[in-house]
Amino acid sequence: MKKHYVEDAWSIIEEGFHPEMQRSSESIFSLGNGHMGQRANFEEKYTGTTLQGNYVAGVYYPDKTRVGWWKNGYPEYFAKVLNAANWIGIDIEIDGKALDLAKARILHFRRELDMKGGVLSRNFGVEFEKGKQLEIKVLRFLSIVEKEAGLIKYSLTPIGFEPEIMVRAYIDGDVQNQDANYEEKFWQEVAKGSTANGSFVSLKTKKLDFEVTTAQRLKIDLDGRAQSLRGRQVERNKFVSNQYDFTVAAGRELTIYKYAVNVSSLHVASENQEAEANRLLDGLTNKGFDTLMAEHSAAWQERWKMNDIVIHGDVAAQQAIRFNIYQLNQTYSGEDARLNIGPKGFTGEKYGGGTYWDTEAYCLPFYLLTAGSEVAKNLLRYRYRQLDKAIDNARKLGFSDGAALYPMVTMNGEECHNEWEITFEEIHRNGAIAFAIYNFIRHTSDYSYLYEGGLEVLLAIARFWKQRVNWSKDKQAYVMLGVTGPNEYENNVNNNWYTNYIARWTLQYTAECIATVQSDAKFWSEFKAKTNFDLEELTAWSDIVEKIYQPKLAGTLLYLQQDGFLDKEDQTVADLDPSHRPINQKWSWDRILRSVFIKQADVLQGMYFFEDHFDIETIRENFLYYESRTVHESSLSPCVHSVLACKLDMEEKAYEMYLRTSRLDLDDYNHEADEGLHITSMAGTWMAVIEGFGGKRIRDGVLSFDPMIPKHWDSYSFNLVYRGSVISITVNTNEVTVENKSSESVKLKLYSTAHEISGSSTLSINR
Amino acid sequence: MKKHYVEDAWSIIEEGFHPEMQRSSESIFSLGNGHMGQRANFEEKYTGTTLQGNYVAGVYYPDKTRVGWWKNGYPEYFAKVLNAANWIGIDIEIDGKALDLAKARILHFRRELDMKGGVLSRNFGVEFEKGKQLEIKVLRFLSIVEKEAGLIKYSLTPIGFEPEIMVRAYIDGDVQNQDANYEEKFWQEVAKGSTANGSFVSLKTKKLDFEVTTAQRLKIDLDGRAQSLRGRQVERNKFVSNQYDFTVAAGRELTIYKYAVNVSSLHVASENQEAEANRLLDGLTNKGFDTLMAEHSAAWQERWKMNDIVIHGDVAAQQAIRFNIYQLNQTYSGEDARLNIGPKGFTGEKYGGGTYWDTEAYCLPFYLLTAGSEVAKNLLRYRYRQLDKAIDNARKLGFSDGAALYPMVTMNGEECHNEWEITFEEIHRNGAIAFAIYNFIRHTSDYSYLYEGGLEVLLAIARFWKQRVNWSKDKQAYVMLGVTGPNEYENNVNNNWYTNYIARWTLQYTAECIATVQSDAKFWSEFKAKTNFDLEELTAWSDIVEKIYQPKLAGTLLYLQQDGFLDKEDQTVADLDPSHRPINQKWSWDRILRSVFIKQADVLQGMYFFEDHFDIETIRENFLYYESRTVHESSLSPCVHSVLACKLDMEEKAYEMYLRTSRLDLDDYNHEADEGLHITSMAGTWMAVIEGFGGKRIRDGVLSFDPMIPKHWDSYSFNLVYRGSVISITVNTNEVTVENKSSESVKLKLYSTAHEISGSSTLSINR
Repeated sequence: MKKHYVEDAWSIIEEGFHPEMQRSSESIFSLGNGHMGQRANFEEKYTGTTLQGNYVAGVYYPDKTRVGWWKNGYPEYFAKVLNAANWIGIDIEIDGKALDLAKARILHFRRELDMKGGVLSRNFGVEFEKGKQLEIKVLRFLSIVEKEAGLIKYSLTPIGFEPEIMVRAYIDGDVQNQDANYEEKFWQEVAKGSTANGSFVSLKTKKLDFEVTTAQRLKIDLDGRAQSLRGRQVERNKFVSNQYDFTVAAGRELTIYKYAVNVSSLHVASENQEAEANRLLDGLTNKGFDTLMAEHSAAWQERWKMNDIVIHGDVAAQQAIRFNIYQLNQTYSGEDARLNIGPKGFTGEKYGGGTYWDTEAYCLPFYLLTAGSEVAKNLLRYRYRQLDKAIDNARKLGFSDGAALYPMVTMNGEECHNEWEITFEEIHRNGAIAFAIYNFIRHTSDYSYLYEGGLEVLLAIARFWKQRVNWSKDKQAYVMLGVTGPNEYENNVNNNWYTNYIARWTLQYTAECIATVQSDAKFWSEFKAKTNFDLEELTAWSDIVEKIYQPKLAGTLLYLQQDGFLDKEDQTVADLDPSHRPINQKWSWDRILRSVFIKQADVLQGMYFFEDHFDIETIRENFLYYESRTVHESSLSPCVHSVLACKLDMEEKAYEMYLRTSRLDLDDYNHEADEGLHITSMAGTWMAVIEGFGGKRIRDGVLSFDPMIPKHWDSYSFNLVYRGSVISITVNTNEVTVENKSSESVKLKLYSTAHEISGSSTLSINR
Repeated sequence: MKKHYVEDAWSIIEEGFHPEMQRSSESIFSLGNGHMGQRANFEEKYTGTTLQGNYVAGVYYPDKTRVGWWKNGYPEYFAKVLNAANWIGIDIEIDGKALDLAKARILHFRRELDMKGGVLSRNFGVEFEKGKQLEIKVLRFLSIVEKEAGLIKYSLTPIGFEPEIMVRAYIDGDVQNQDANYEEKFWQEVAKGSTANGSFVSLKTKKLDFEVTTAQRLKIDLDGRAQSLRGRQVERNKFVSNQYDFTVAAGRELTIYKYAVNVSSLHVASENQEAEANRLLDGLTNKGFDTLMAEHSAAWQERWKMNDIVIHGDVAAQQAIRFNIYQLNQTYSGEDARLNIGPKGFTGEKYGGGTYWDTEAYCLPFYLLTAGSEVAKNLLRYRYRQLDKAIDNARKLGFSDGAALYPMVTMNGEECHNEWEITFEEIHRNGAIAFAIYNFIRHTSDYSYLYEGGLEVLLAIARFWKQRVNWSKDKQAYVMLGVTGPNEYENNVNNNWYTNYIARWTLQYTAECIATVQSDAKFWSEFKAKTNFDLEELTAWSDIVEKIYQPKLAGTLLYLQQDGFLDKEDQTVADLDPSHRPINQKWSWDRILRSVFIKQADVLQGMYFFEDHFDIETIRENFLYYESRTVHESSLSPCVHSVLACKLDMEEKAYEMYLRTSRLDLDDYNHEADEGLHITSMAGTWMAVIEGFGGKRIRDGVLSFDPMIPKHWDSYSFNLVYRGSVISITVNTNEVTVENKSSESVKLKLYSTAHEISGSSTLSINR
């Protein structure tokens, strides 16, 4: 396992320059503020291997789809998050020669992502000729206070010579997505302009008319003294720049402050963008870099008060959990129900940046319990806003009567994915969307979303399941044919246990919710009219609930992943030659499909969601069987195993899985960090602490904990927002302390014992 | 059902111009001579909907593959038959205005493909202004005597006016494949040149360096008097033309003779192509159009002597079978083991023009019994030449020890297809390739191919099957997981009965062949050394033969297409709303996959291949069950059903299926004739007559017939080349006549009675 980054409680640190790791490090050191995000590309020219990435939240492009063999029902386009204008660019020339780390003689190099303050720094030294050296220090952050703003402080100190330094600060909109299906560029120029100390470019997407104005303002100091800026403005298509020349004596420091903003049409109409950009830049330059950084870092520290998980005694684990929490906060802040969380956030192009079931299955609990129910509700609303399109989507596939199939990948509610075995068959996503509604309600005891659209969503999903099963004369049961479960190393299987189970549960839960709302006569009659619902529909649902097939090995407690699973040649991961891993890189797809190896929790995902439905022996038997056959080549897998291992008192396994989920990208387990970070699975890491080691559950409507502590740790603590209160839990080897930080009293259970903790008081019990 | 073309025993005739049918008619009226082929595009400019297609046998392009989501094991390219230089072009301008049927006022229009003589003719009249008309007559053929030659006679007669007629005969190599994945053009120019009466262009493919020189020579007559040719030569990139102007008095006929050749690097080295083209054109022009056409038509008539199937009393059936035989002969002549038969032959781009299992399963018997064993053996040799690549292909998927998986689609032995469910899983193709060897030997009693490579092919396929099955503890049987059978409306199934069966049979047959060859000690020791074969391998094979799983419905004779087939909602084709057909155009892929409907014979394909293994009641029960669930949306399906229906004395069904297979393109059952003709399934049509109605079988090494005759027919007759003899069978309602046209006597069975027919004699028996 690589240990490339220095272990540190609050920082990610890279010592020395490693060009072979540059693409991975660009992912790891990514910055974001919910409004925009960016890979850790260098400001100055870099001719080595790189993946340029600047992203603006909610701005995407419907790229013409690329398929090998068209299947009826495929969507026409694959929407993808756009690589937007590169606003960080500062080209440096020293005596006419470009500063380029791919070509320079590097004396030292260090970068650090300070997660506490949300700042990326980079210090390095290069030598041009013997005795002619240059020291460079760079600070960069995307403000979480001023959401449109990105700030750079770029300092150069020549040593041993007095060079001519050319500085060209630019914005380059002539960018491309590396994943563009036909190598098209997606932006066109609308306007641009320059002044002596700044410039802007307004770009519009070739389809959908998203418009983003990116603008920069420069301030340059020499040894702290502001320089008057007289230079050249060079413009090209979609490109603006401000270029200046300085003679800098040895030992003196030239500092470029680059203030940049991205103003997007999600917030500001096209015709007002240039003015808004100028207004913002005026405000930013008035405050100045230091003030902006101070208020940004203060805001981060405020966030950490609520979000932080403190682990004592295990720096690797501490660093990892903070890295996960930090990246989640960089990606999504939850104010805007039009936005969601792409699997890679703002750290790469992979998966197109669309919304997957990851949001409901993994991310919702994190935002619900750290940012609060309004943020989480926005994630639910996102799906309600897209219900009509989910119904259209199902109709295209041949379903009727208001049945909805939510897309596998979406930007605006329309399906983007085009692999039949996923697009048409990985339908368990519908179940996760229903489960999220239930999960929200059980945590908050707030039923309002049911009335505000949630029940419509549930009904449409229930109707889908009802039509998606069919009666098997052979089995004398309802079966569900041709599905792909969470384990995507099997495709087009029959009777995937997880999918059958969550379908059955959805029918039950929707029926319960219908019973709940009927007392509200006005709502009920409007609901029936709007959805054409008839209580008769419940009859078919309950028949399916009663008679749906659940593959199980007779005489055991083992549920079978799908029909025919026992026909496979049985092996365990322990039998696998390590050189064959990860199998998704080493084996043909054919071999993977036929093997017994599981990419991701599947039966176990079901037992995680519906733990209370199963006794401990059933969970144990299934865990032991499936864990030993799971290769965890989905980032979403180890967290679930970690939570269940805690439940089963398998501390070593839980800890192994925790490290795997929490350090997935830092240690690059699956050799793919260069493509971006696994943002959505980072929420799973958080679950692994809170629900795994912390043993947090909602049982019969009551918050409860069964904390354990890995033997590698001295203590850990975390905060939760729960029904308006904030509670803080600390677990060490001897005791569990619960602090109620709010004024209201909180009821909860610790190790099955009920407690009521008064406002602003603390309970400690021995472990 | 459309009946667009006039029914005629020897011709395909279209009356009236139907622009909406133009693309379909371009397919129907295609010409070919084994060396090259061509869709029936117009010579003159045509701005309506068209698919330009000129193809040169064996010349293909490795187009960069296009996939949605890459799977390990996919090939990097999809080789496709190239749209080559358009050599038919003759632009006509009348008083400065282009002749263009998309815009002209058409007075009459007729085209006819004379299959007896192999000539396409087109006569039409257009009116420019009242009283100013033009009559046009065009003859075109691709000589089967001079394989490089295409000939056109294009005559124009003005009526009621004396126009200036501009004639521009051109060769345009600036063409594109409509199916190019990235809209690239695949040809680049190497050389070109023009003289007063001709021009040439040499083109090379951008990859693989195929080179084709296309050249033309013009002769132009006015009322039969040769005109001296003084004109202009206009050249552009990849384009040459000869342009002439004439003033033609009313009622006089201007006739353009265009002699063209395609000389390809498969036969002539690049540096000699221009000279060879000129040499050929000298020869052609010396002979002259009429002589060339006469010798071409005579050669066709000679072919028909052997190939023809005569049906009396049913013009539609007569026309159809001749159309099928004609197209097969246009596509492949069998002299060159580098060539094979693409599903669309030279009539369109679909399926890329590569080789599929169609060749072995459908085409081999046709060529074997009409063209003789040497032609058929070339088809077998094609696969032996590609054995190393088939072994590579299997290795890429994780197989070892000399196991071979032949590609689903190939040009040179490398896999081109890239849908995992087909590429990796539709492995029954390996079985068909083994079966073809057996089929060749049982027809010819010629074992030479076994020693010349055939046994190596069988061994490599047997080794593949051995590794491809695994032992199921659950079933206590060998199972084959993750396959796609001939019925591509199910993907990634377990224990496809057909695949399991043909795998089992391959192991048995290969073991038999190994037993056969061991008496040849020299061969045997060389074979063992070359293949690393050890007789020990047979032990595992015989265990698999004994214990491979064959899904069957208990208590019945019904074999099940695959595991889980009985879980489907049962329906028959009779239950299908006709407006939902063809389901591959009307339904989502999801719905198709989950439905019970079958694209193509699957269990029945197995019973067709291995008829002698099953009693008649088993065949009947399976036929009745599967036929009623088969939608025949593969062109390869109805012929097999027709043959089996004959076997079961289901004359009406056999006839229905015969019409469907034989008139598939003429009546465009599946609404896709515009993409090209179903060339390989045309051989299935031939089988439907010979093996279906004629009841031809090889039983215990003896040729036998059980003829029946559809009640719509008065009689039918056909010839077969059989073990060096030619026999002719005529069946009418009262009797069967067998004429032995060779000097040797022939042993055969008629209705299970053995006969020996002396050379040059005839046997008649009552039916």
